[in-house]
Amino acid sequence: MRILVLNAGSSSIKFELFRMPEETVDARGLLQRIGEPLGELACRIGGHERKFERPVKDHAEGLRLILDALTDTAHGGFADLAEITAVGHRVVHGGEAFHEPVLIDDEVERAIEAHVPLAPLHNPPNLLGIREARKALPDVPQVAVFDTAFHQTMPPVAFRYAVPGELYEQAKLRRYGFHGTSHRYVSERAAAILGRKPEAANLVTCHLGNGCSMAAVRGGRSVDTSMGLTPLEGLVMGTRSGDIDPAVAAYLERVRGLTIRQIDALLNKQSGLLGLSGLSNDMRTLLAAEAEGNERAKLAIDVYCYRIRKYVGAYTAVLGQVHALVFTAGVGENSAPIRARVLAGLEPLGYRLDEERNRAAVRREADIATADSPIRILVVPTNEELVIARDTFELALRRPSRFVAG
Amino acid sequence: MRILVLNAGSSSIKFELFRMPEETVDARGLLQRIGEPLGELACRIGGHERKFERPVKDHAEGLRLILDALTDTAHGGFADLAEITAVGHRVVHGGEAFHEPVLIDDEVERAIEAHVPLAPLHNPPNLLGIREARKALPDVPQVAVFDTAFHQTMPPVAFRYAVPGELYEQAKLRRYGFHGTSHRYVSERAAAILGRKPEAANLVTCHLGNGCSMAAVRGGRSVDTSMGLTPLEGLVMGTRSGDIDPAVAAYLERVRGLTIRQIDALLNKQSGLLGLSGLSNDMRTLLAAEAEGNERAKLAIDVYCYRIRKYVGAYTAVLGQVHALVFTAGVGENSAPIRARVLAGLEPLGYRLDEERNRAAVRREADIATADSPIRILVVPTNEELVIARDTFELALRRPSRFVAG
Repeated sequence: MRILVLNAGSSSIKFELFRMPEETVDARGLLQRIGEPLGELACRIGGHERKFERPVKDHAEGLRLILDALTDTAHGGFADLAEITAVGHRVVHGGEAFHEPVLIDDEVERAIEAHVPLAPLHNPPNLLGIREARKALPDVPQVAVFDTAFHQTMPPVAFRYAVPGELYEQAKLRRYGFHGTSHRYVSERAAAILGRKPEAANLVTCHLGNGCSMAAVRGGRSVDTSMGLTPLEGLVMGTRSGDIDPAVAAYLERVRGLTIRQIDALLNKQSGLLGLSGLSNDMRTLLAAEAEGNERAKLAIDVYCYRIRKYVGAYTAVLGQVHALVFTAGVGENSAPIRARVLAGLEPLGYRLDEERNRAAVRREADIATADSPIRILVVPTNEELVIARDTFELALRRPSRFVAG
Repeated sequence: MRILVLNAGSSSIKFELFRMPEETVDARGLLQRIGEPLGELACRIGGHERKFERPVKDHAEGLRLILDALTDTAHGGFADLAEITAVGHRVVHGGEAFHEPVLIDDEVERAIEAHVPLAPLHNPPNLLGIREARKALPDVPQVAVFDTAFHQTMPPVAFRYAVPGELYEQAKLRRYGFHGTSHRYVSERAAAILGRKPEAANLVTCHLGNGCSMAAVRGGRSVDTSMGLTPLEGLVMGTRSGDIDPAVAAYLERVRGLTIRQIDALLNKQSGLLGLSGLSNDMRTLLAAEAEGNERAKLAIDVYCYRIRKYVGAYTAVLGQVHALVFTAGVGENSAPIRARVLAGLEPLGYRLDEERNRAAVRREADIATADSPIRILVVPTNEELVIARDTFELALRRPSRFVAG
């Protein structure tokens, strides 16, 4: 039984084909530069690595290209599209409407469309992906898995901003949080590693990729998270500023004559590690530059780690008792030096890192705390696509539904 | 020896007259509604309570009114302006130029003026107060005490935002922090109460007034603080939002068509406790409303306390070891219920509140932690005017200077 997982961006489609319930990956790939003169599809299908370059004018054509590659039996593909039994879609913003994955129908499509104002860069391409996949595979159940859903358990005290209530009630201005699929996955894995039921585990999870966010997870439920209305708030990221005085907009208008859109682009695309270092948004590049004496790279890394440390403290205060701190995603899974710098000085709070275990833990599950650490420190590689595949499998194939019945 | 302390706002002048080095207060008062049809001066001079209502067209006239009242011998005043031996001015924003109080000369005036873009609402009236006082009392040394100065010891890792470096270097976009005079005063008092030298005390200080801020103070030096480029960032305040996704500007432009100025006004003047509760910016009013079942008042108070709790955690992480948490200013000094709600659940971090001591501590110095609390919890009434008077006394009268010499 094959489940296709799609993640459609503004000019890209990422895909992964799972065999379920075995959870093996038959194919994965990334189509980039849709709408540009030359698109690129890089994929690995049934053990065959392939790369195509050709113009791909829109998402419809892109999806056709991907489905053609998947069914190209001469290059590892399977024979018939009918073998795809369900499609799972990553959707960034489900607002307050979606607390869990849902089978997609027209009403769900409309609801995702209704959330475009909250995620104008992300929901429209997600919707495109859904629409084209429903056209291309009309008889197959399709499932939407939302980046925001896991955080919908946050209490008002964590998700409300201190603005006039009307702006929450009417304009839906509140903290939503993102990376929910990742925080959910690693918190479930962490509870299993700890030998605790999810209901009995208090966790601080750090998703440190190009986007970065943290969550406080109590008993399997997100109770706070660092990203907010949008993915801009919170930690320092590759190109995003994270937390900053909200008066920055008025200041940059006053002293630089920038418009809101320019400021928004500046804070989202030219800030973060890239802005501080003036060099790169990539942590490996920065660590290498720092090692060669680049002071700006050092500052960028220092600020990045310092802000994580502050959130570790904040979420320790939120949870009261923490069983484990969990690192995941690119930097979190791979960078022992960053983990060490984040945790330096946090011993009095109960976080005691074992340096040797830390160095040895690269892209694999590991407990990197000292034996006597009051709080465990875990590395747990994330797997958002697998979670989407599982949710899709669960929802489309196990539960009765009009699609499966149809 | 008399020292006059002035705090000039856009339409107000607050003053306090100290006898030094005794540190007794001979007079204090507040002139409001400068430039409006009817101004009001309420003061207590030499034991006489007085209240004037009359038009006060500008700060020059306002200062004359205050000086007249101070020398009105029929109503508790002293005979001669010459008895004022120095004037201390509160100045909000000293940027990176001022790490400590300074004797005011033309160059200092120009420097304060140069910082107007950073504090367009505050520095201009502060400057007006300085200019008028220098005209009215030309032979008297005048001292500027900056709200930002105490926080100038923050390391770059705490004061730099993750924006392009050029915006810090050229546009001076960084965290400055405010309420410095208060954080300095209460951290010095707290060290004394702890029986520690300031150099050996790690403190988390919470200034909870109408404006609210927290600081992490290590060995007598501020190493982080919650207010930022402006006093908008950080905790929830009477009418200020505190921390919020910086994308809020782009969002409110998109969905509400608001301009940056409208958004800035919204976040500064209609948000915070007032915005969340829809009722009041005053904590006593909100506590009373909550007691009568007002759910919005409860939410506003809950968010207010929750955000403080997160900063307590963050600064505990910053400092590693904390000797005491200090509450000050209106709410911090007076509201035992708020202190209790802030600290509920923080026992695992070492903050153990003694409920009885807490209830008994109203507007007086007190240790309200349990005897076995690993971290002390203190109430320390702040006194910014006294600090300004001391700094002015110290700088104008003890050190050699062109003014004293002149």
